[in-house]
Amino acid sequence: MFVYADNAATTAVSKKVVDAMLPYFTEVYGNPSSLYSVGQKAKEVLEESREKVAAILGAKPREIYFTSGGSEADNQAIMSAAKAGAKKGKKHIISSKFEHHAVLHTLQALEKEGFEITLVDVHENGVVDPKEIEDAIREDTALVTIMYANNEIGTIQPIAEIGRICREKKVWFHTDAVQAISHVHINVEEQNIDMLSISAHKFHGPKGVGVLYVKGGIPVSNVIYGGAQERGKRAGTENLAGIVGLTVALEDAVANIDANNQHLAPLQERLIQGLSQIPYSELNGDRHTRVTSNVNFCFEGIEGESLLLLLDDKGVAVSSGSACTSGSLDPSHVLLAIGRPHEVAHGSLRISLGEDATEEQVDYIIKSVAEVIEYLRSFSPFWGDLISGKRNHVFAEHKEIA
Amino acid sequence: MFVYADNAATTAVSKKVVDAMLPYFTEVYGNPSSLYSVGQKAKEVLEESREKVAAILGAKPREIYFTSGGSEADNQAIMSAAKAGAKKGKKHIISSKFEHHAVLHTLQALEKEGFEITLVDVHENGVVDPKEIEDAIREDTALVTIMYANNEIGTIQPIAEIGRICREKKVWFHTDAVQAISHVHINVEEQNIDMLSISAHKFHGPKGVGVLYVKGGIPVSNVIYGGAQERGKRAGTENLAGIVGLTVALEDAVANIDANNQHLAPLQERLIQGLSQIPYSELNGDRHTRVTSNVNFCFEGIEGESLLLLLDDKGVAVSSGSACTSGSLDPSHVLLAIGRPHEVAHGSLRISLGEDATEEQVDYIIKSVAEVIEYLRSFSPFWGDLISGKRNHVFAEHKEIA
Repeated sequence: MFVYADNAATTAVSKKVVDAMLPYFTEVYGNPSSLYSVGQKAKEVLEESREKVAAILGAKPREIYFTSGGSEADNQAIMSAAKAGAKKGKKHIISSKFEHHAVLHTLQALEKEGFEITLVDVHENGVVDPKEIEDAIREDTALVTIMYANNEIGTIQPIAEIGRICREKKVWFHTDAVQAISHVHINVEEQNIDMLSISAHKFHGPKGVGVLYVKGGIPVSNVIYGGAQERGKRAGTENLAGIVGLTVALEDAVANIDANNQHLAPLQERLIQGLSQIPYSELNGDRHTRVTSNVNFCFEGIEGESLLLLLDDKGVAVSSGSACTSGSLDPSHVLLAIGRPHEVAHGSLRISLGEDATEEQVDYIIKSVAEVIEYLRSFSPFWGDLISGKRNHVFAEHKEIA
Repeated sequence: MFVYADNAATTAVSKKVVDAMLPYFTEVYGNPSSLYSVGQKAKEVLEESREKVAAILGAKPREIYFTSGGSEADNQAIMSAAKAGAKKGKKHIISSKFEHHAVLHTLQALEKEGFEITLVDVHENGVVDPKEIEDAIREDTALVTIMYANNEIGTIQPIAEIGRICREKKVWFHTDAVQAISHVHINVEEQNIDMLSISAHKFHGPKGVGVLYVKGGIPVSNVIYGGAQERGKRAGTENLAGIVGLTVALEDAVANIDANNQHLAPLQERLIQGLSQIPYSELNGDRHTRVTSNVNFCFEGIEGESLLLLLDDKGVAVSSGSACTSGSLDPSHVLLAIGRPHEVAHGSLRISLGEDATEEQVDYIIKSVAEVIEYLRSFSPFWGDLISGKRNHVFAEHKEIA
C-alpha cells in the first residue's frame, strides 16, 4: 500500500487544475502587459482570476497580489508593514514563537535593521492567547502577525479575535493562512484580517504561485522591484498558468471545506485513538482546535528521521516537523514552543491526510507506525535507559485522549 | 494571417517543455525537502536540473539558484552585492541608462538607502562603451551591472570585455542575460561574469521561473526569507515543474543558437530593408551588434499605441517598447538613452521574431506596418505639420541601411 499523508508539505496537483492550466502554456501565452489580442486575453484571464480569488476571501480585486508563493507573500506583508511603520516611528512587531520560518526569518532580518520583535508564547495546546497579544501591543507596534493554522501541529488560532483586538488598537494584522485556507472558512472582512498569505501547492494547485491580500489603504512595498505588474508592487511577468491553477484549486478547495471536514474528522479521530495505543506517545496540540487533516505525535525514545525512513519503506509518506526544515538536525521550534522537551521533540511525526483518505489507509498508517516504533525501540539504548529506569519518562505510559 | 512577433515579451511554451513538466504536477509531486521517496525523487530531479543548467552556463551546480524569474534574479544579484559591499564601505554601483526596470528600480531603491548610482551613457548604436565603465569604477564600487542584450532594441553589449575590466579592478559584475541567453553563446567563466540572470519564459519555458548564477565566494543575500531551500538563500517550496520546464527549454534553446541565428539573420535583414522603405523611419540600435530576432524602428509622426492596435487588427502581434512598461505613457527610456528625441521615441515598434519565422510572415509584417503607418499619417495633424514644413523632420526621408 502507498499512502501519501504529507499534504501539509505539498499536495499533488489535481487533474482538473492541470487541465485548466494547459491552455495558458501554449495557446493564451501572451504577456498580460501586451496590447495586442493574445496579450489582452491573458490580461482578462488574469483579472478574472483576481476577482475570483478576491470574492472567495471576501476582499476587493485590487487588494489581491499574485506572488511566487506563501513565503514571498509573508515576506512582502511583513516588509510592507515594517517600512510603513518605520516612517511613523513604529518599529515594534508582534508574532508568536511557532510561526513559519518565512515569518520568523523575515522578522530576524528586521531585527538586524533595528526593529524590536516580541514573540508571544504558545500554550501547551498549541494556541496563542489573544490576551497576551493585547498586552504586548505598544504605541510603536507596527504589525501583529500570527499564523491561521500551524504547519506542524495544525492548531487553529483565534484569528478573528486577534484581528478584533488589532483593529481596536489600530495595529495592522497579518495572518499566514497557508495551512488553513482549505480547512477553515476565511473571510478577511468578517475576521478583521488586514493582510493574508496563501500558497497554491497546499491545496492541489501548482508550486510557485501564491496570493498576498492587503487591505486597501495599507501601503504595499516591493519585495521584487521592476516592471509595473501587480500595480507596480510585484515585478515580473505574471505566471498566468500558475495563477489560473491557483484559482481553480482554491475554488475547489473552499467549496469542499465542509464536506472534506466531515469526511476527515472521523478519520482523524481514528488515527489519534490508534496512535495513542502506542506506549509513551502523546498527541501534540489541542485535540479539537486543529485542522481535520492533521495529526502530530511525539514518541519517547524515537529519532524522527529513522521513523520516517522506515515508514517510507512501508509506503507511508509522512514527515517529522515541516518539510522546510527537514534537512535540519535541530528539534522542531514548534514543539519546543508548546513545551515539549528536546528529547521528545526529536521524535515527532506529522501526518497530514489528503481529502481522499480512507479508513484502510488510516489503519495501515497506525499499524505501520506501531511496528516501526516497536522495532526502533528494540535496539535503542535511549529506550533501554527509559525501560530500565535509568532515565525518567516524559510521558505517561498511556494517556486518554479526550 | 496571424504572426506572433513579440518573442522578446514572452514566448509560447513548447510542446516538448509542457510534456516534460506534466509528470511533476501529478506524479513526482513530492516536496524536494521531504525525506521519503516521492520527495527524494523530486530532490534528485531538482539537483539534476541544477547540474544541467550549470553545465550550460559554464558554472558549478552550487552557483545556480532557482528563482521566480528574471526580475527576482536581478533584484537578488544587486541586493546581494549591495549588502556585501556596504559591509566593506562600498556603496557605489555602476549600471547603464538603458537597463531593464528590474535593474533600474532596484538601483533606485538602493539610492534611497544611501547608495550612489552611476548610470553610464549608451551610445547611439545602443552599445555601452567598456572604457566608460572602467572610468566610472571607484575604490568604493561594489558592483557593475550591465545587461547582455537590450530588451527593446536587442543590441548586444561587450560583456566579456566589461567582465575583464571588472575582474581586473576587483569589482563584481552582474549581467541581466534574459534577452541574450537563447541568442548568444554564454559561458560565465570565459566571459568573466560573476552574476547572471535568466528567465524561462523568454525561450519557450514557463512563466514564473528563472535562474540566478552567482560565482562561488560572492555572498548571496535573501530577497525572500524563510525555509532552507536553495541552500537557505531563496525560501519557498521549489517550483519543480517550472524548473524542469526551464531546464528542458534552456537545453533546446542553447543547442539551437547557431541554427536559429542562421535562419533568422536573413529574415532580420529582409525586415530591416523592408521597413527602411517607409519614409522618415529609422532603425534603432546597431544594425549588426544585435540579436538576430530583434528589429526596432522609429517612425516619425506615429503614436506607438495606435500602431500596435491597428497591427493587431491585421493579425500582427508586436510591441512598442517593452511589455513591462506598455501601460505607461512615458516614452521608452531605452530610446531616450540612445538619443532619440521624445517625439519619435513615442512612435517605436519592436518586432521580435520567433525561431520558426518565415519569409511570408516577414513580408506580411512589412506590408502591414507600411499600410498602417500610411493610414495613421493620413489624418495625423503632427504629420501634417511635418509635411507642410511647420515642423522639422528628425529623420531623413530615406536612410540607407548598411
